[in-house]
Amino acid sequence: KDTKEVLRALQASVDVFFLFTMSIIIFFMQAGFALLECGAVRSKNTTNILIKNMLDAYISGIAYWGFGYALAFGEPDNAFLGWRYWFSEGIPDEKLSHWFFHFVFAATAATIVSGAMAERCEFIAYFFYSSMITGFVYPIVTHWAWSEKGWLAVGFGGVGYQDFAGSGVVHLLGGTAALVGAAFLGARIGRFDDDGTPKPISGHNVPLAALGGFILMFGFFAFNGGSQASVSKSGDGLAISHAMMNTIISASFAAFTALLAKKFGPAVYYCDRHSTDDWKLLSTINGALTGMVAVCAGCNVMEPWAACVLGLISGITYLLWSWGVEKMKIDDPLDAVAVHGGGGLCGLLLAPILKIDGIIYNPSNTDAWLGFGVNMLGAVAIIFWTAAISAIIFGSLKAFKLLRVEQELEIRGLDVPKHGEPAYPSEAWGDGWSAGHIN
Amino acid sequence: KDTKEVLRALQASVDVFFLFTMSIIIFFMQAGFALLECGAVRSKNTTNILIKNMLDAYISGIAYWGFGYALAFGEPDNAFLGWRYWFSEGIPDEKLSHWFFHFVFAATAATIVSGAMAERCEFIAYFFYSSMITGFVYPIVTHWAWSEKGWLAVGFGGVGYQDFAGSGVVHLLGGTAALVGAAFLGARIGRFDDDGTPKPISGHNVPLAALGGFILMFGFFAFNGGSQASVSKSGDGLAISHAMMNTIISASFAAFTALLAKKFGPAVYYCDRHSTDDWKLLSTINGALTGMVAVCAGCNVMEPWAACVLGLISGITYLLWSWGVEKMKIDDPLDAVAVHGGGGLCGLLLAPILKIDGIIYNPSNTDAWLGFGVNMLGAVAIIFWTAAISAIIFGSLKAFKLLRVEQELEIRGLDVPKHGEPAYPSEAWGDGWSAGHIN
Amino acid sequence: KDTKEVLRALQASVDVFFLFTMSIIIFFMQAGFALLECGAVRSKNTTNILIKNMLDAYISGIAYWGFGYALAFGEPDNAFLGWRYWFSEGIPDEKLSHWFFHFVFAATAATIVSGAMAERCEFIAYFFYSSMITGFVYPIVTHWAWSEKGWLAVGFGGVGYQDFAGSGVVHLLGGTAALVGAAFLGARIGRFDDDGTPKPISGHNVPLAALGGFILMFGFFAFNGGSQASVSKSGDGLAISHAMMNTIISASFAAFTALLAKKFGPAVYYCDRHSTDDWKLLSTINGALTGMVAVCAGCNVMEPWAACVLGLISGITYLLWSWGVEKMKIDDPLDAVAVHGGGGLCGLLLAPILKIDGIIYNPSNTDAWLGFGVNMLGAVAIIFWTAAISAIIFGSLKAFKLLRVEQELEIRGLDVPKHGEPAYPSEAWGDGWSAGHIN
Repeated sequence: KDTKEVLRALQASVDVFFLFTMSIIIFFMQAGFALLECGAVRSKNTTNILIKNMLDAYISGIAYWGFGYALAFGEPDNAFLGWRYWFSEGIPDEKLSHWFFHFVFAATAATIVSGAMAERCEFIAYFFYSSMITGFVYPIVTHWAWSEKGWLAVGFGGVGYQDFAGSGVVHLLGGTAALVGAAFLGARIGRFDDDGTPKPISGHNVPLAALGGFILMFGFFAFNGGSQASVSKSGDGLAISHAMMNTIISASFAAFTALLAKKFGPAVYYCDRHSTDDWKLLSTINGALTGMVAVCAGCNVMEPWAACVLGLISGITYLLWSWGVEKMKIDDPLDAVAVHGGGGLCGLLLAPILKIDGIIYNPSNTDAWLGFGVNMLGAVAIIFWTAAISAIIFGSLKAFKLLRVEQELEIRGLDVPKHGEPAYPSEAWGDGWSAGHIN
Repeated sequence: KDTKEVLRALQASVDVFFLFTMSIIIFFMQAGFALLECGAVRSKNTTNILIKNMLDAYISGIAYWGFGYALAFGEPDNAFLGWRYWFSEGIPDEKLSHWFFHFVFAATAATIVSGAMAERCEFIAYFFYSSMITGFVYPIVTHWAWSEKGWLAVGFGGVGYQDFAGSGVVHLLGGTAALVGAAFLGARIGRFDDDGTPKPISGHNVPLAALGGFILMFGFFAFNGGSQASVSKSGDGLAISHAMMNTIISASFAAFTALLAKKFGPAVYYCDRHSTDDWKLLSTINGALTGMVAVCAGCNVMEPWAACVLGLISGITYLLWSWGVEKMKIDDPLDAVAVHGGGGLCGLLLAPILKIDGIIYNPSNTDAWLGFGVNMLGAVAIIFWTAAISAIIFGSLKAFKLLRVEQELEIRGLDVPKHGEPAYPSEAWGDGWSAGHIN
Repeated sequence: KDTKEVLRALQASVDVFFLFTMSIIIFFMQAGFALLECGAVRSKNTTNILIKNMLDAYISGIAYWGFGYALAFGEPDNAFLGWRYWFSEGIPDEKLSHWFFHFVFAATAATIVSGAMAERCEFIAYFFYSSMITGFVYPIVTHWAWSEKGWLAVGFGGVGYQDFAGSGVVHLLGGTAALVGAAFLGARIGRFDDDGTPKPISGHNVPLAALGGFILMFGFFAFNGGSQASVSKSGDGLAISHAMMNTIISASFAAFTALLAKKFGPAVYYCDRHSTDDWKLLSTINGALTGMVAVCAGCNVMEPWAACVLGLISGITYLLWSWGVEKMKIDDPLDAVAVHGGGGLCGLLLAPILKIDGIIYNPSNTDAWLGFGVNMLGAVAIIFWTAAISAIIFGSLKAFKLLRVEQELEIRGLDVPKHGEPAYPSEAWGDGWSAGHIN
């Protein structure tokens, strides 16, 4: 009997260890987002985007501690929100690792938005929307989807919402907020011609963007695999194994689809074999990320071939969304809407189809169709909720003229006027090789 | 019975796994320090600071293997030092993971100093002080504080020294050595005017510094959480959970305090609402790091609200120390003294006050006051020991003219004359866009 | 009895957890290789080398999923290859973590080659050889060495091939393919004078290269420690402990040997104390990596002093190979042949000598000599197999003029013509400080 208790305690210890290890790696995704965004902006707005990404972690630390966790997982709760553990007051000891895991997720959700609003958003506006997302918008949705009593988790007719690692809860939510934010904010000066022709604005540093991509991939394995939240229970190992393997398979096929579609798409479209485009690194990175986002929803219950199909579809999805957002004259410097919104929606809707025993295995399975319905409802609910609150947040900020920096400031860049810290101060450069540098 | 043994063996395996995973992540903090320092120096001294940070890991590998661990944890030992396991000779197998964990800590302690001495320190001097710190100065202090018989660990009247993850042992020690080193070395040319007015010298690369900050935060979770050194024992899970959660809470509040105090401090001081400063990224990073340093001492036995208070105080602490060091005309390019020395001292003294059942819970608890006394004594001992040995090391190096590079070399920068490797060789640049690059 | 089963299940869970954690960290080595290579090329070929490194992960994801794992670990199998689990069809659930671990290894093997072929290799050629290595060349060798029935694993007279983490299987293989590839490809324009004098071509970014080095070191601990593949079995803890400790000791001594030999080697050679060279960062990084590569083969069964000896030898090995490759007029921008080929061969041959109960412990032990013979045979087999297939691959590509870009393109750089993405677009720069930037 004593042995049994020791064994149970060890199981709990291993789960705590698992959750913290995965959380630490997921936390590092903050650096991935920061560098991806840093590389995608012009050098004059580099410090600005970096400080926003860094503060995301700390705003989340405060807002999620104060309010977020209480709304998401506080008990007593109802189908819509929880209501306890404000400032972690009264939280049971064994829930602290759960708190930390969900804090790193909240920090991730917040950071998606900053990319879409880069290079022109007021610092104060950023504080406000970032706190609102991590402290309010996101926690409510996690309660719906991931707490025992949440209305999506309960679902209908015994069939619940399938969103293992958050294609909807994290990415569709972040992508929706990014879309609304970018729409209210308006495009950067020079992003569209007077006649509306889009003119790409290059980021200043491809290696930093690529490093950001690598860090995000590193983190995504923990994000998807860690979503099982425990490793000692029966079935945990299999779910985690599926999640990890499907993540790389979906990412690989999505990356190649995006790469090849970008390269040969125009030639196919114009039926002209000379109209090929380039081999684009940034499309490859974004394609891979979209594949990883899309696989979140069902990665624990999908066979590898299904992850392959999902990857192929999500790679195309990314390009279509990217094209569509631009067509709407919305300026999203990071393609955050396409990657997270487009990829998240794609994954959420395809999970009930492609998952084991899903629609594709047995199209007459009514439970599978019900699952599809629940996921679709979840998608609609997340989009509406997020868009509505975001419209209020960004609309108010705009009404009070707190949303966007002045035109002169935007042209000059935000780093020096706002932060007094140019990213690459010219007086600190010079390689010292030439004798002329002696003074 | 057989089952019990298997269970015990599994507990041991899980602990070994825990220790190595945390150690690997802590090791990566070397990259964090390297980039933070690299971003904070001028481009002409970039290779120089990178090679020093890289060698820190290898100097530690050799010095800690040869001498450090033997002095810190060799048995037989007395209250002041251990005396066995030189070059890991005779070390029991089950202590190897312990060795590795303490090696990564030693490497961290050594690397704090290089920032304060950047851009003007001789390469040979660096070898010497770095070996001395990891092979001698630091191991002795860890013996005092973290070995069973150490005089600080034993403490007085049954109350021992509270320094869970090393606010004192690692950071105050590193900060003290950095202060003494920077004082003996003198300020960089141009850092202070002839009349003593400080003139900031900008680092050359904010994105690299920010990435360094992110990596350090990533590593700090393992540094603080991993300090429990095991996960399978009763109480481990709770201690680790507290450590992790308190780390992000203290960091978040410290980051915001530093950000806001830097921005609005001058306005408050001059009672003039137009005298605000900028939103500083580097202050935010250093504030967060100071919060993480300060929480080391008591993060395992602190409630989240206490970590919040500690964060608020340590954010201010950082700015005051930074200002104080500059007032003393000491040139610390990385603010290593303020972050590690100031933050470490702050954490060491506040831990006995803020920890559960500490002074603030019951001011008439004599054991709590005794704990405060032991920690204060520990702080004094660490400062004196480190300062004394550092003064001998840096004083001797200065006397033999081995401490500082010649003036002409300093102006020219160290990368080319010392390393033959400019960080950004001009002949390797050119984006190839313009036709002119064809030859 | 029930307890026993739960315990066994927990052991399995812990091993799955261990394997995935190590795998995630090993995956991050992709970023390390990418940055090391990115820093070592000129800015005009930066995007090109980054996209190759990024695609390595995804090509591996597809090729290893489709064919690699089936050839390496499919059952039924014979001494030379496996033949099942194509596209993971029919793979048992408990092997999925094994699949993932070997996928990250395969991705590492592929990525070694791209460095040696940087700045002049066709994109299509890269696709082809990269798929072949991860889908065919590498898996066959892993079957020989690491599957139960493999002929090297079985060995002779009961003595098997000793290559714990792949000095031979991964690094010698990668290094051999790199050598053959670089030889077929020819040197970069300007790398050798008309009279054959080598002229170094500097990379464009030392900090990125150094960060790459740090990431590789971070990953190497998981690479070597994780090769035990489980942590719950008796003896696992000790093997992992040895692997970790020996990795840092070998790296430390190799780094210092390379640093000092580079600095003082010329002075010794010319017997002239004024002929010293510089303190080279890149030699230090490559020296450390060579030490980590060399220790792979025997790190689990070596005492620390032996790792120290191995480090001293491999540091010199690196410099000699680097010199030898250049003498052969082969242009290897990353020294990948010297680090991985030279280091791998050195480790493979020294492991049977230096390991516990190896030749040096008892030179009359015939089993130890037999082990040396098996390892030598393994080295010869890996070199021949890899060189033969590589010659076919690179020879065919060359014959069809698909191997090397045109001269004009090489001079102009690959980023703009091939990818349309200069690494640092000039229009995105400007720090915004000066008023002139307003328009």
